[in-house]
Amino acid sequence: MNYIREVDGGFSIIKNLKVSGAREGKYGVSVILCENSTASAVFTTNKVVAAPVTYTKNVVENGIVSAVVVNSGNANCFTGQQGIEDCRRIVDLASKELDIPASEIAVCSTGVIGREMPMDIISDVFHESISKLGNTSKNSLDAASAIMTTDTFPKEEALEVTLNTGEIVRIAGITKGSGMIAPNMATMLAFIVTDAVIPKKHINEAIKTAAGLSFNMIVVDGDESTNDSCLMMANGASGINVVKNNEIDSNFQQALNQLCINLAKKMARDGEGASKFIEANVRGAKTSDDAKLAAKSIITSPLFKSAVFGGDPNWGRIVSAIGYSGCDLNPDIVTIAIADETEDVDLVKNGEILAFEDTPYLKTAEKIMQSKNIIVNIDMALGDGEATAWGCDLTYDYVKINAEYTT
Amino acid sequence: MNYIREVDGGFSIIKNLKVSGAREGKYGVSVILCENSTASAVFTTNKVVAAPVTYTKNVVENGIVSAVVVNSGNANCFTGQQGIEDCRRIVDLASKELDIPASEIAVCSTGVIGREMPMDIISDVFHESISKLGNTSKNSLDAASAIMTTDTFPKEEALEVTLNTGEIVRIAGITKGSGMIAPNMATMLAFIVTDAVIPKKHINEAIKTAAGLSFNMIVVDGDESTNDSCLMMANGASGINVVKNNEIDSNFQQALNQLCINLAKKMARDGEGASKFIEANVRGAKTSDDAKLAAKSIITSPLFKSAVFGGDPNWGRIVSAIGYSGCDLNPDIVTIAIADETEDVDLVKNGEILAFEDTPYLKTAEKIMQSKNIIVNIDMALGDGEATAWGCDLTYDYVKINAEYTT
Repeated sequence: MNYIREVDGGFSIIKNLKVSGAREGKYGVSVILCENSTASAVFTTNKVVAAPVTYTKNVVENGIVSAVVVNSGNANCFTGQQGIEDCRRIVDLASKELDIPASEIAVCSTGVIGREMPMDIISDVFHESISKLGNTSKNSLDAASAIMTTDTFPKEEALEVTLNTGEIVRIAGITKGSGMIAPNMATMLAFIVTDAVIPKKHINEAIKTAAGLSFNMIVVDGDESTNDSCLMMANGASGINVVKNNEIDSNFQQALNQLCINLAKKMARDGEGASKFIEANVRGAKTSDDAKLAAKSIITSPLFKSAVFGGDPNWGRIVSAIGYSGCDLNPDIVTIAIADETEDVDLVKNGEILAFEDTPYLKTAEKIMQSKNIIVNIDMALGDGEATAWGCDLTYDYVKINAEYTT
Repeated sequence: MNYIREVDGGFSIIKNLKVSGAREGKYGVSVILCENSTASAVFTTNKVVAAPVTYTKNVVENGIVSAVVVNSGNANCFTGQQGIEDCRRIVDLASKELDIPASEIAVCSTGVIGREMPMDIISDVFHESISKLGNTSKNSLDAASAIMTTDTFPKEEALEVTLNTGEIVRIAGITKGSGMIAPNMATMLAFIVTDAVIPKKHINEAIKTAAGLSFNMIVVDGDESTNDSCLMMANGASGINVVKNNEIDSNFQQALNQLCINLAKKMARDGEGASKFIEANVRGAKTSDDAKLAAKSIITSPLFKSAVFGGDPNWGRIVSAIGYSGCDLNPDIVTIAIADETEDVDLVKNGEILAFEDTPYLKTAEKIMQSKNIIVNIDMALGDGEATAWGCDLTYDYVKINAEYTT
């Protein structure tokens, strides 16, 4: 796949784009200035949605986004009419300062639910952020940092892709996790900008496909947030249209998928309290939906996640998690293996159990379970369905972080 | 409800019943001798089922159970043909020792998945157990103790019920938890015996109804085990038939529900690592299925469970958990309150948020969250659906117990 090249610099690789970030205590504000971009978004499916989600849905439906203002520290969720008014106040501020129409400004929030927005502080941090707008690597990193809540490191990705036509376009993105990472989206915000030209209809398809393979396949704790939003903007700065004959360029879609998967894996790796990274690969499922169910169930199981934390080769918990996932399963033909970067071992082969006590299989499994990266490979031997999900272990620190979050 | 009286003594209140329990290290064996009982059972819905579940389903379908042999320490799950053969070996032992037909003997197991049964040890402990068969309170407690795995206390309940006819019958039961307690059943075993006469068809209905209100409404971690079994036997020792005009006596059903709810609450209270007990009451839901979804979602949310552990009044996590539960919800009319034994406080009233920062509502909530028993009361204001679910907090000890279970 050398038509996709990962590069440094985050958002700085995109022309006609300015970003910034500032923080005061637990409150951060990032601004993305991406004038006249076509845009699309994927939002939380939680029935309780934060005010900025409701607000930004309308903005995105209009089709053009010229700026995004994001705050961390307060989710502006379950804040009633006041919440919507606070969105408008932020947008009005941004509209005045940036001299762009209010109708083209999106807002996103992440943080505590059910507390009114501290608008004085948010305004101050907004002004500080906007005074720093620019297009350097540092600007990008500042923006990625200012949206963090319990994240331990900023998350950005950038890549260049050579299209099937030989032309080159760029995609960059930032994201934040890191609890409430659940089957459908997460307590996550993701912002992706490309310098390609993409008509509205196709940008919609493109981001839905990519999110389905990435952000919707990571689990930290199984909770689903009220604020999850993934916004994609195409500012067209390259002048290159990635849609030909009503089809999106396949290299572009591949690159977008890869960018989103890279960001999603960073989120899983930085799950609240995470000490280990888990990847679950399922193949041979009856359908790809079945494969997704099984892969996510492994990644979600608190029992398996605790076992990974403890380095305990309790593979029965993998079996059990697949069993209750709702997918079709025949235990008599399933193959279960675990691996790390250097070794892999079958635990169950075509339904036959190998990893009984005092076997070399179990001994190798014990060794693998000590690794920082645990890979679970399942072959259901029922069909062609495939899926991969990513997650992390369940640790003392997860409990600690979430026992003390608002206080 | 003084037609139901809780009494001491566990299984000892039932005539013509002998029980026993013995333990050696992590392996325990309990025996319940209940000759010529009609019987019914509810089993795990996990697609991976342990050998004793497969085996015992057939026994129960035959309709008469005269003895149950239960072992802890090994789940006899994912053990292939050997697992079924090991069930038969246990049944043959019991048939010979107790002089009852093998076809009337049920077996259950709980413990580690994917390890062959250590039949030498299990046989030894079985023989020790059977040598102690009797009908004292101590026998009952021994039986309740021998089936424990990570449980911290034995769980038994007994009650007398005055039927609508004025006649009196008795019900007693034992159970074990305590991880993998999930939406549908749990890593639980429950054994219930009544001295009433109940025809096969009606015992089936009776235990299904009771399990739906109790064992299916507790959550420890959201994992669902491969071994969950709830067996109910009616040995008819009282000579009193609780079915009249093809209907089960309503007092009897109430009493059975109460017994199962009491056992279920003990399991929730003794969830792995639990330091606090949580009850979630949902009313005003569109349907009772919706109410169940919402109540269970609150009890399952790792974020809310961590907040309870930390005594953090982060009620936004309750809102969020209801929002992604799949139930119908209108955030603008919902009422959310929390309570303990002495106080209760509205956090959100008819959609209006009361518990903002620095309010007396939030201060009271902070105080309540320090209690050992946290009650969450939700009124969705959409219909007549009601449900209650029980659970526990997510603690360091949960992680510790499950990080070290097999090793």
